[in-house]
Amino acid sequence: MQEMALTPRRIAVDGMGGDYAPGVVVQGAAQAVTDFDLEIVLVGQEQLLKRELAKHKIPGGRITVHHASQVVDMGESPVQAIRKKKDSSVAVCIDLLKQKAVDAVVTAGNTGAAVAASTLNLGLLPGIKRPGIVVSIPTLHGISLAIDVGANVDPTPEHLFQYALMGDIYSRSICKKRRPAIGLLNVGEEESKGTTVTKEAYKLLRESDFNFIGNIEGRDFFTGKCDVIVCDGFVGNIVLKLTEGLFENLVEFIKKELSQNYLAQLGSFLCKSALLNIRKEANYEEAGGGQLLGLNGVVIISHGSSTAWAIRNAIKKAAQVVEFDVNGHIVTEITQRDKSKAEAGNHSSANSKPAQPHADDKK
Amino acid sequence: MQEMALTPRRIAVDGMGGDYAPGVVVQGAAQAVTDFDLEIVLVGQEQLLKRELAKHKIPGGRITVHHASQVVDMGESPVQAIRKKKDSSVAVCIDLLKQKAVDAVVTAGNTGAAVAASTLNLGLLPGIKRPGIVVSIPTLHGISLAIDVGANVDPTPEHLFQYALMGDIYSRSICKKRRPAIGLLNVGEEESKGTTVTKEAYKLLRESDFNFIGNIEGRDFFTGKCDVIVCDGFVGNIVLKLTEGLFENLVEFIKKELSQNYLAQLGSFLCKSALLNIRKEANYEEAGGGQLLGLNGVVIISHGSSTAWAIRNAIKKAAQVVEFDVNGHIVTEITQRDKSKAEAGNHSSANSKPAQPHADDKK
Repeated sequence: MQEMALTPRRIAVDGMGGDYAPGVVVQGAAQAVTDFDLEIVLVGQEQLLKRELAKHKIPGGRITVHHASQVVDMGESPVQAIRKKKDSSVAVCIDLLKQKAVDAVVTAGNTGAAVAASTLNLGLLPGIKRPGIVVSIPTLHGISLAIDVGANVDPTPEHLFQYALMGDIYSRSICKKRRPAIGLLNVGEEESKGTTVTKEAYKLLRESDFNFIGNIEGRDFFTGKCDVIVCDGFVGNIVLKLTEGLFENLVEFIKKELSQNYLAQLGSFLCKSALLNIRKEANYEEAGGGQLLGLNGVVIISHGSSTAWAIRNAIKKAAQVVEFDVNGHIVTEITQRDKSKAEAGNHSSANSKPAQPHADDKK
Repeated sequence: MQEMALTPRRIAVDGMGGDYAPGVVVQGAAQAVTDFDLEIVLVGQEQLLKRELAKHKIPGGRITVHHASQVVDMGESPVQAIRKKKDSSVAVCIDLLKQKAVDAVVTAGNTGAAVAASTLNLGLLPGIKRPGIVVSIPTLHGISLAIDVGANVDPTPEHLFQYALMGDIYSRSICKKRRPAIGLLNVGEEESKGTTVTKEAYKLLRESDFNFIGNIEGRDFFTGKCDVIVCDGFVGNIVLKLTEGLFENLVEFIKKELSQNYLAQLGSFLCKSALLNIRKEANYEEAGGGQLLGLNGVVIISHGSSTAWAIRNAIKKAAQVVEFDVNGHIVTEITQRDKSKAEAGNHSSANSKPAQPHADDKK
């Protein structure tokens, strides 16, 4: 995604969410208001947050603190936590978004709790059954998207179909792909491969008007074979973290291999910056987080282990997603699809395909 | 795994299985009998196989052909294929194993068909509910095992528990680990994370006498945090293929990064062999395939895209697994566990733990 001029936005940041909160979260927020033209509402325990804020120089008072007395721990059961802790930092962030006091929310806390709080409180976009997290994946041929990477570990075929729908729109509006190739992550290319859920999802996608290229195997995750990789949140989350871990360890892997050969050691030294670049390119810190797509509001989910840099980038992404009005695009497209379907039902045979939604692709 | 002196074994090889069969399969078999002291029964369409065999010099007639008139295609529904095609190459391989005409089977064909044929015909080891494929994973700290990587895409918690049991025994008997650390691949370290199946499997493992270290996330797949990674066959297969794809593309990734910097280009040239070594280390061709553990017989499953070198190594692995009598170890241990459980039930309180099965660890 290219740098862009952001119109001033107000972003609520969950000050208590993440393994290194509140310290690194406040640091990331301070960095974001320094680098971008936006305002931040830090949500969480006031005293703690103010003590952390005092460590940074905040331009023009662009960070305010909104008190929330409770914290959802990483290991807590999401639904129970949201029911019991009405004044948790994540629940209050979502409340502020619902009241339109902010334009978006960023949280690095318990993912399940963020999903539960936002689904219950904000609700979903019309027609959408479950939200999914979408992230950018660096490949040999540019950026692909993967959806879902952790919101929904037990999806139905219809959920996967809707991830394809939202991924298609996200790819066109944010990544500017004309007609994104959609692939279903599976254990084999053949239609007969996979779980009961992926087999059924395959049928739904094959019968759709998407540019569905079929199942893709793990080996094609990084080849850029498709623009949108549709997967369940369980495998998506594991694959994403595995890749990050692998790239983090890449330099160490190579060092180990090189340790007994002087020429190779020199070689390693000379291309170290290239290796570090690769690591950076595949690093979640650069993307910062992924949008929880399908919600009636903009929520960005970051890793629990987010650094200040990752938080800063997640805040930037939140502002971009608001700017590009991804949710507006999804609503427009779903409405258009429903209308086309209804018209097709009224005017033509039952076998006709729905109208091409890609005709109105905003470029 | 170190090189070892193999006593002469007879291995049935599915001559028609795999994307490049029969050519590369026959080539791999020819290589195996040249490199190792074993005999091979090539199963499949006689004329085709004999034509391929004529291209190679086979020492001492150590490859014979056993005719099978049918072939199971990669995209066929496994159970239907096995029901209809009684004379398929994979079914005949399994028949030969059942009749003890061979010591083990190697196939690079339709995995589901191999699993179905061997489960139906050979049956499972006493007490085992579903077979799982175990493979070696290179990590920063030596070799780990992953089980299951594709036999069972919809496992129950009990299946996962049994994968831990078999992985533990495999790790002790083949990898010579004293008390293998067992981890459950999941979306978070906390017990509350994951699918209904992984949550239940976590409980079973926690209450067991394994050295269970809890959930491991994707980022720890390659750090060697545990010796045995337990996972479902869907995520296991995707993760394995993704990693292979990533390492295959690694050199290309780095080349791309280096293309505009002469010093880095030189560096890349100097450490190219190290990079190729890493690719080799993580290459499925070296392992050749994974054992389908839990069967009453030794069956090695190779990738559909296996090269001749991968087939040669899969045949070597088959001979090793027979040599180490992994199945015998599993049967002994399960019997001992059942006995200990029964004794514990007779002599002590209901809360007592089962006897330590690791005491009789064969080193």
